[in-house]
Amino acid sequence: MPSELSENRKTHAGERERIMVHHITSASNPLIKTLKGLHAKKGRAESGLFLAEGARLALEATDLGIWPAIMVYAAAALERPRLQALIDEAERRRVRVIETSESVLGQITKRDNPQTVIGAYEQRLSTLDEIAGATVVALEGVRDPGNLGTILRTADSVGAAGVVLVGECCDPFSVEAVRASMGSLFAVRLARASLDELLEYKRQRNITLIGASLNGRHFGEEIPPPTQTVLLMGNEQSGLSAEIEAACDLLVQLPMRGRADSLNLAIATGVLLYDLWRRRGYDGARA
Amino acid sequence: MPSELSENRKTHAGERERIMVHHITSASNPLIKTLKGLHAKKGRAESGLFLAEGARLALEATDLGIWPAIMVYAAAALERPRLQALIDEAERRRVRVIETSESVLGQITKRDNPQTVIGAYEQRLSTLDEIAGATVVALEGVRDPGNLGTILRTADSVGAAGVVLVGECCDPFSVEAVRASMGSLFAVRLARASLDELLEYKRQRNITLIGASLNGRHFGEEIPPPTQTVLLMGNEQSGLSAEIEAACDLLVQLPMRGRADSLNLAIATGVLLYDLWRRRGYDGARA
Repeated sequence: MPSELSENRKTHAGERERIMVHHITSASNPLIKTLKGLHAKKGRAESGLFLAEGARLALEATDLGIWPAIMVYAAAALERPRLQALIDEAERRRVRVIETSESVLGQITKRDNPQTVIGAYEQRLSTLDEIAGATVVALEGVRDPGNLGTILRTADSVGAAGVVLVGECCDPFSVEAVRASMGSLFAVRLARASLDELLEYKRQRNITLIGASLNGRHFGEEIPPPTQTVLLMGNEQSGLSAEIEAACDLLVQLPMRGRADSLNLAIATGVLLYDLWRRRGYDGARA
Repeated sequence: MPSELSENRKTHAGERERIMVHHITSASNPLIKTLKGLHAKKGRAESGLFLAEGARLALEATDLGIWPAIMVYAAAALERPRLQALIDEAERRRVRVIETSESVLGQITKRDNPQTVIGAYEQRLSTLDEIAGATVVALEGVRDPGNLGTILRTADSVGAAGVVLVGECCDPFSVEAVRASMGSLFAVRLARASLDELLEYKRQRNITLIGASLNGRHFGEEIPPPTQTVLLMGNEQSGLSAEIEAACDLLVQLPMRGRADSLNLAIATGVLLYDLWRRRGYDGARA
């Protein structure tokens, strides 16, 4: 087995830097099985890891000082100097670095054309107290991982201080959510909270809770720009729970025309976040 | 075969209304095969049909006077009076109505929990000339059917006059696009056009072309609200082509903060459409 060959190389002196790279081409290798298992919630729960695909994501994560627990790559990655440097640095940082075949990468990612670099990262959540800033997004019972990932990306784009998951939400570390977040999962603080914890957070910081609801009024110009806002968005089907609506300072809804009776959750969140940011003069926007 | 039993019933007098319903439980039946084939572009091209799943979509379509070519349902649908009425009316309108098993519905939709009613509808496109109104969305080279469907839904929500597909776009009639559109595919005019046709359309109607581009300036308040606007959005990866950018009256970009270097295409379209509509005072919004 190629894996054993690599292990044997550990006995050679002076090769410490290189020998940490294992070459695994067997899809039944336990480590590869662990990576493949990260598509399932169980596998993610047991390992505490999640998959992020692609060199771009890996490079963005390292820019933020985040290194994977495991990094897998195909030999083709070594032809790109930035990736070669990434892999070398990962080895120095004691990341478990594995070279494998494109076929195995395809099996790990369940894609026909897999990326040449894949990382398995530790799942990290912030506490509510670590989230502070003008705008926070809270999602109650979001179910679609694509929506959740897209909302993370949008929250990042408007400089939101973080995203809080309230109640039973889909897993932000699922492959689909990570893909949709396009790297913003690494950049945006993410926390879980009960409704009680969220309300305590609001009380302590004098935050305005704005809930998106069909019971809300249109989001007109008369609404003053709150300095500290939590924008609360509900479940794709049922919206916010009555309990959380009752706790909101303000319920708003976007104007609607045509026959559509609602917007996609990520779209509604995006429109509202940009509108809130507009009211603050797009402060902090990149030139 | 149950299908043959139903055919036999055609010989009975006085049962004309009911006997048009075929009972098919075999997944190898040619009609069922045609429906299953609608997941593939080839099957859609050959039949000129597309799949729309669910009673809600079927009811919304009939509200717009749109009936499927083929309607398939599971017996459970007959327990709901509105669906029973829908099925009866479809029969009267000479729709090919087929009762089948949930298992076959699952195979048609490739879902574990299929909807109880599925329609196969004729693909219809409008001409550019049929699209007239304050706001039109044009998409150049959109690739993700989920984005396309979501944009149709958002265009519907702001009362856009239509959506124009320019260049090589993904198929708006794919199952994924139809699902994401949540019925708005039936409500929003959809056309295909070459860049030349779009520019001729612009010239004839004195329309302002606004292109979303990283080369654009921020979408500030100084931009006058155009009365007739085509909002042009580019491909998910590469944006608008240089050729189309050069034809725009105005290039805009949304402000960005944080580490994300771009928004999801459907999010950017949604934010821009709502912002354009806000500048027109949300005219025509439902109370």
